[in-house]
Amino acid sequence: MTKPLTIAVDGMGGDIGPPVVVPAALRVLKATGDAVRLILVGQEDVLSAQLTKLKAKGHPQILIRHASQLVNMDESPAQALRVKKDSSMRVAINLIKQGEADACVSAGNTGALMATSRFVLKTLPGIDRPAICTTLPTVRGQTRILDLGANVDSKGAHLLQFAVMGSVLAEVNGIQRPRVGLLNIGEEDIKGNEQVKDAARLLASSDLNYIGFVEGDGIYLDDVDVVVCDGFVGNVALKSSEGVAKLVRHYMTQEFKRNLLTRVAGLIALPVLRAFSRRIDPRRYNGASLLGLQGIVVKSHGGADALAFANAIQVAMLEVEQAVTQRIDAHLAVLHAARQAL
Amino acid sequence: MTKPLTIAVDGMGGDIGPPVVVPAALRVLKATGDAVRLILVGQEDVLSAQLTKLKAKGHPQILIRHASQLVNMDESPAQALRVKKDSSMRVAINLIKQGEADACVSAGNTGALMATSRFVLKTLPGIDRPAICTTLPTVRGQTRILDLGANVDSKGAHLLQFAVMGSVLAEVNGIQRPRVGLLNIGEEDIKGNEQVKDAARLLASSDLNYIGFVEGDGIYLDDVDVVVCDGFVGNVALKSSEGVAKLVRHYMTQEFKRNLLTRVAGLIALPVLRAFSRRIDPRRYNGASLLGLQGIVVKSHGGADALAFANAIQVAMLEVEQAVTQRIDAHLAVLHAARQAL
Repeated sequence: MTKPLTIAVDGMGGDIGPPVVVPAALRVLKATGDAVRLILVGQEDVLSAQLTKLKAKGHPQILIRHASQLVNMDESPAQALRVKKDSSMRVAINLIKQGEADACVSAGNTGALMATSRFVLKTLPGIDRPAICTTLPTVRGQTRILDLGANVDSKGAHLLQFAVMGSVLAEVNGIQRPRVGLLNIGEEDIKGNEQVKDAARLLASSDLNYIGFVEGDGIYLDDVDVVVCDGFVGNVALKSSEGVAKLVRHYMTQEFKRNLLTRVAGLIALPVLRAFSRRIDPRRYNGASLLGLQGIVVKSHGGADALAFANAIQVAMLEVEQAVTQRIDAHLAVLHAARQAL
Repeated sequence: MTKPLTIAVDGMGGDIGPPVVVPAALRVLKATGDAVRLILVGQEDVLSAQLTKLKAKGHPQILIRHASQLVNMDESPAQALRVKKDSSMRVAINLIKQGEADACVSAGNTGALMATSRFVLKTLPGIDRPAICTTLPTVRGQTRILDLGANVDSKGAHLLQFAVMGSVLAEVNGIQRPRVGLLNIGEEDIKGNEQVKDAARLLASSDLNYIGFVEGDGIYLDDVDVVVCDGFVGNVALKSSEGVAKLVRHYMTQEFKRNLLTRVAGLIALPVLRAFSRRIDPRRYNGASLLGLQGIVVKSHGGADALAFANAIQVAMLEVEQAVTQRIDAHLAVLHAARQAL
C-alpha cells in the first residue's frame, strides 16, 4: 500500500470559508476513495462544527490543524506576511515545508498566497518569479495560460521560465510535446513589445515545442497547449473573458425573460442551455497553479462553491501524483545545461 | 442649406473590397438622405462596375476617385508608405489633407492605415502617439476602450493623452463628464505596472472625470465610459473577448445540433437567440476611431460586411458633425494650460 497523499487545505480562505471548504473536502474524499488525506487548517471550533453539521465528525481521512488567525481577502500581502504568522493560509503552507503535507490549496487572497508561498517555500533554482497558471476551455479542448498576475513588467527570460512551467503542466495533463505560443498582437510593423520580441528569440532556441505568436482570440480558438504572457496582460485577458461571458449570460437571460412567449421558448431550450453552460462552467476549471515554487500550491477562486473548490483540491492531487515540482526542476536543469553548452 | 459632409471611402480595403464597400455606401446614402457625399477611392473600372451592378451608376452623392494601387492586408506599414503612394488608402487620406474630404474610412490593414494617416495628416499638438478606440457593449449600455494596438510600451503621459481623446469621443456620443477608468489588475501589493501607476497620478490631477482602476471584467460590467490602456493590453483584451464570444457561439451551436430534440428546441428558441445575437452583434460596433490626428480617420474591420461597413461610415460622419478633432485639440490646450499654471 502506498502512502496516501496529504493535502493541506486552508479552511478559512475565500469569500465564504468553512461552509464551502468542508463540503468540498468531503466531496473529494467521496470521489477519490482512500487515495488522499486532507488536513483542514483554521479555527478548530468552526471547522469542527462544520464537520458535525455534515455528519462527518471524526472522518478518518480528515485532520484539523488549528490556526488562530485568518488573512482577509483585501489584506496586503506584506501585512499578511508580517502580522499573520498563525493564519490558516500560512500554517497550511508551513505544512508543506515541514513535510506534513504534499500540497496546499487555498481560496484566500492571491497576493498574500503568492507572497507567503514564496517566503515559506522559496522558488526553484532557475526560477526568478513564480507564476500563476490556469486551464481554459477552447473550441477543441483545453489550453493553459500563464502568468495571470503574479508578475508585471516581465522580461523575456521570465516568459521563457513561464513557458517551461506551463509546458510541464500540460504534460501532466497528458499532452506530449505541448505546443507553446507567445501571446502577442497582430500589428504588422510593431509586432509586439520588447519583452515579447526577446521571449520569442529565447523560445525559438529552447527545447520547447514553440509554435510562435498567438493573438488574444487564439487563446480559445487556436491549437495551442500553453499560452505565455506577462502577468498584467494575462490577468486582463482572463478577466475580460470572464466579463464577456457574464455579458452574454446577462443578455441571453434578458431576452428569454422578455415576454410569455420567450419564457416558454426558454423553458423548452433549458436542457440545451444547461448542457451548454456545463461545458463552459468556470467551476470545472477552478484551481490555478502557483508554479515555480519548491512545493505545490493551488489557488481556488475566492467565490468558489463546493464543487469548484473540490476541483481545486483535485488539481493539487494530480500535481502531487505527477510530481510537477520535480519535473519543472528537471526541465530547468536541462535548459540550464543547454545554455552552458552554448 | 449647409454644405454636405464629404467622406472619402477606401473602396479597395478589407478582405472583400468593392463588393462590400459599394453596397455599404449606398446603404448610408439611403439612411441619411442628402446629408453626406461619398468619394469612393480605388480602381475606377471596378468601382464603376459595382455601381452599375447595384443600379446606382451616376448617383449624385457618389464620386469616384481613381487610385491605381492597393495596400495588401498583410503588407508592412513601412512598405505601404514607401511604395504605395497611389494606393486607394493613401489617396483617400490625402483627400482630407487637400480639404476635399472631411474624413476617411478604410477597412484596409490597420498598421498601414495608422502609419499613412500619421504621415499624411500629422498628430495634433500635444499628442505623441495617435490611438485606436472602439465602442463595446456593456451590461448597462456602451463603453469605449483605447488604445487597441497602435502603441505598445506606452508611458503614463501617453495614457493621459488617450484618456483625453476617449473622453471627447464619449462626449460626442452624448455623455456628460464621461467617467474614465484605467485598466489594471487586482493584485493587491503589485497593483499595476509602472506605466499604470504613473498614469493614475496624472489622471487624478487632470480635469477629467477619472474614477480609478477598472479590471478586465469591468470593461463589460462596470459603470465606466472610457477604459484607458496600453495598446498591447487593449488589443489582447479585445481579441480575447472576441475569442470567448466565438467559443460561446461554437458550444451553443454544438449543443443545439446534438439530436432531433435539441434541434427542435433550437428552432423554438431561434427568435430569442437571434434577438440576443443582434444585441451583441459586433457589426453594430464596427468602426474604430484613429484619434489624435489632424483629421478624422475611421477603421472598419477587415472582414466587415455592408451593414458593418456602413456603420463605420456613420461613425466618421458623427465625428465630423461633432468636430471631434477640434474638441480634442481644445481639450489638450486646457490640459497644457493647467500644467503651465502649476
